[in-house]
Amino acid sequence: MIEKVAKSAQSAFIHLSALPEEVRNNALKEIASALKLRGDEIEKANNQDLENSIKNNYPQPLVKRLKFDQAKIQEVVDGIQSLIQLPDPIGITLSATELDAGLELYKVTSPIGVIGVIFESRPDALIQISTLCLKSGNAVLLKGGSEAMNTNHILADIIYTASLKAGIPENWMHLLETRSDVNQMLKLDEYIDLIIPRGSNEFVKYIMDNSNISVLGHADGICHVFADQSADIDMAIKVIEDSKCQYVAVCNATETLLVHDKIAAKLLPGLKTVLDKHQVRLIGCQRTAEIIDVELANEQDWKTEYLDYTLSIKIVDNIDEAIQHINTYGSGHTDAIITQDEKEAVKFMNLVDSGDVFWNCSTRFSDGFRYGLGAEVGVSTNKIHARGPVGLEGLMIYKWRLIGNGNIVSDYSSGKKKFTHKKLDKKYPL
Amino acid sequence: MIEKVAKSAQSAFIHLSALPEEVRNNALKEIASALKLRGDEIEKANNQDLENSIKNNYPQPLVKRLKFDQAKIQEVVDGIQSLIQLPDPIGITLSATELDAGLELYKVTSPIGVIGVIFESRPDALIQISTLCLKSGNAVLLKGGSEAMNTNHILADIIYTASLKAGIPENWMHLLETRSDVNQMLKLDEYIDLIIPRGSNEFVKYIMDNSNISVLGHADGICHVFADQSADIDMAIKVIEDSKCQYVAVCNATETLLVHDKIAAKLLPGLKTVLDKHQVRLIGCQRTAEIIDVELANEQDWKTEYLDYTLSIKIVDNIDEAIQHINTYGSGHTDAIITQDEKEAVKFMNLVDSGDVFWNCSTRFSDGFRYGLGAEVGVSTNKIHARGPVGLEGLMIYKWRLIGNGNIVSDYSSGKKKFTHKKLDKKYPL
Repeated sequence: MIEKVAKSAQSAFIHLSALPEEVRNNALKEIASALKLRGDEIEKANNQDLENSIKNNYPQPLVKRLKFDQAKIQEVVDGIQSLIQLPDPIGITLSATELDAGLELYKVTSPIGVIGVIFESRPDALIQISTLCLKSGNAVLLKGGSEAMNTNHILADIIYTASLKAGIPENWMHLLETRSDVNQMLKLDEYIDLIIPRGSNEFVKYIMDNSNISVLGHADGICHVFADQSADIDMAIKVIEDSKCQYVAVCNATETLLVHDKIAAKLLPGLKTVLDKHQVRLIGCQRTAEIIDVELANEQDWKTEYLDYTLSIKIVDNIDEAIQHINTYGSGHTDAIITQDEKEAVKFMNLVDSGDVFWNCSTRFSDGFRYGLGAEVGVSTNKIHARGPVGLEGLMIYKWRLIGNGNIVSDYSSGKKKFTHKKLDKKYPL
Repeated sequence: MIEKVAKSAQSAFIHLSALPEEVRNNALKEIASALKLRGDEIEKANNQDLENSIKNNYPQPLVKRLKFDQAKIQEVVDGIQSLIQLPDPIGITLSATELDAGLELYKVTSPIGVIGVIFESRPDALIQISTLCLKSGNAVLLKGGSEAMNTNHILADIIYTASLKAGIPENWMHLLETRSDVNQMLKLDEYIDLIIPRGSNEFVKYIMDNSNISVLGHADGICHVFADQSADIDMAIKVIEDSKCQYVAVCNATETLLVHDKIAAKLLPGLKTVLDKHQVRLIGCQRTAEIIDVELANEQDWKTEYLDYTLSIKIVDNIDEAIQHINTYGSGHTDAIITQDEKEAVKFMNLVDSGDVFWNCSTRFSDGFRYGLGAEVGVSTNKIHARGPVGLEGLMIYKWRLIGNGNIVSDYSSGKKKFTHKKLDKKYPL
């Protein structure tokens, strides 16, 4: 069943990928209009989901994320408008080489193919990811949380209907219904090229463990701030406060503070005063406990993503110990050093093996919108394809396009002709 | 056991990745000298492998690929010299953005981490891939074929010893010994970031099916030439001959010819005369059989990579049928159209979903050296990270490096400050 769906999406992708920018942007405009026009239907469906959630005693934060009212609709419509303004990611010439006179090679961006997206309660994820896929010429299979079933249904219907009206090929988008659909999808590496899971860590881990398809995402966000011996104390307190407290439930919030032994006594008491205002629970190593009042940390704490007002603190003897700690216990997401010493900053940023390495600023900056990527596909802790916050380019790959005039390899292997391999400063001409 | 090895490679990678270009290039020079200096030892070890292979009645082509004499040594030394000349792939600024005054974001290339490479009989693969990894700052675990055991041992010893002499960190390279080592390696996604298998299709498929780690490579190379109705007949014959016969045992050799119905009667008899000279076995559809003498093709033929003097031929009604056939039966490797009609070429190159799409030239051009990539890591039929022939850039990813002066996110979320998101035309300064 899902195999058939995926196959039809693959075949839609071929035609979608070759559509001119204008058609894709017009479809996005149609979608934005349709979402506003059918706002009442959306709210009605969403109210049903909200009622069911309350009836089923779903946790309060989940119910809150589920809510999709006129204000939310305006927000996603604004998002679509700015997506339309972004430059077309398809057809960008990455390199051009003359292999020989009249034999020209172009490396040109193209969409990846069929993207499988699995997300939890927030229905705006459905709109965001399907419009990102449309802009970038990818087909998409979507599965939302069952608690948002009615909202997702109407949203998918609005988007699909509007896109077809604007000339987008049938079957480019499918809404999957059940968990069993997802499990089937995870096996379809013949048709699906990339999976983007959005949700809890356990959920992302489950996806990664149960599919051969490449996964773009992050299971953990165990971020660190290291306060070096030469850190400006006021700056350190300000950045640590922001990194921990500005929004605790997200992947780029800091979970562990590493403090150079030489400034621990100067930094920690003042820091505690600030963190106490946020009622941050402090867990520390033995040496930390000798300076401020903390619960004693165990090995497990260094591996824990609290996603809460909790901070683990460890005092280290030097920057090498800090780097070693991060590379051992971190998740390769975002790690920052606070120091006035440029040499130490260079060392930290070169040797910490994370997607995002920061000097004298908050780990909370690690985000596609703050990075100015225009639209965020997700944050990746992978080490191939895309790393850190991923914009539209994470949905792109390239094709090699070679244009000749009857050229054959035996002329070159026989020595009759020679390759010139001259870089060309021009765009793909076709 | 292998877990310990992989862990030590990961820790070596951190330091290797931060070494200046000069140290890595000097190490490559040391390796080139050592290979020449210890040529006699290499030949002696290789002779042992050759003797064992003959004793064990290994097939002739395998024994041939195994041979590693002074001429081969000179060839790999030349390869290392040109690798030294290639620009440093580490530390290239891909983008620079001012997020706000004094808060600058840089996207800078960095090596991936630990690469696992599994290759069959050719011992030069060991040298090629380990020096590519060294140049690009990656650590590497290597496993060669058991038939080349003695040669691989001495080569790995020479490379490792010379590199350490030049200041490369210990444990950056390991030679694995057994198949069980490989099976262990395939499970170590915590330490190994990318697997590059080089060998037969069955072998690559086995690796892909048995590891969660990303695989760079191709299992099949089912390449097509499509002779369109407006093809120049002489050009078509020349390109098809080269695509099929120039070297049959490789992934970019053509396996299936698609012929537009309108030129089949003009093209096929002349083509047959040329292919008969190479004793190419011809397998064709019913309509082909009505024009020239061929064996009748069955469904399985369209999915078969012959890697031999065998060509399957199918007559199609139009370009759409050709594109559909390629997207259904092809392997996403390399496909060419022969046509005088630019519109048809554009359509073909846009709608064929392969890494390499060619107009009026041989599929055999699909190769890293011919593309001028300088060095070839492999050919990929993946649709993420790297596609088609992959040069050094396939071993690279990037880090986001953010430099601030105490900047915090709450200033931006409160509206006190605004992001500027100004593109900067400068390189990463640290």
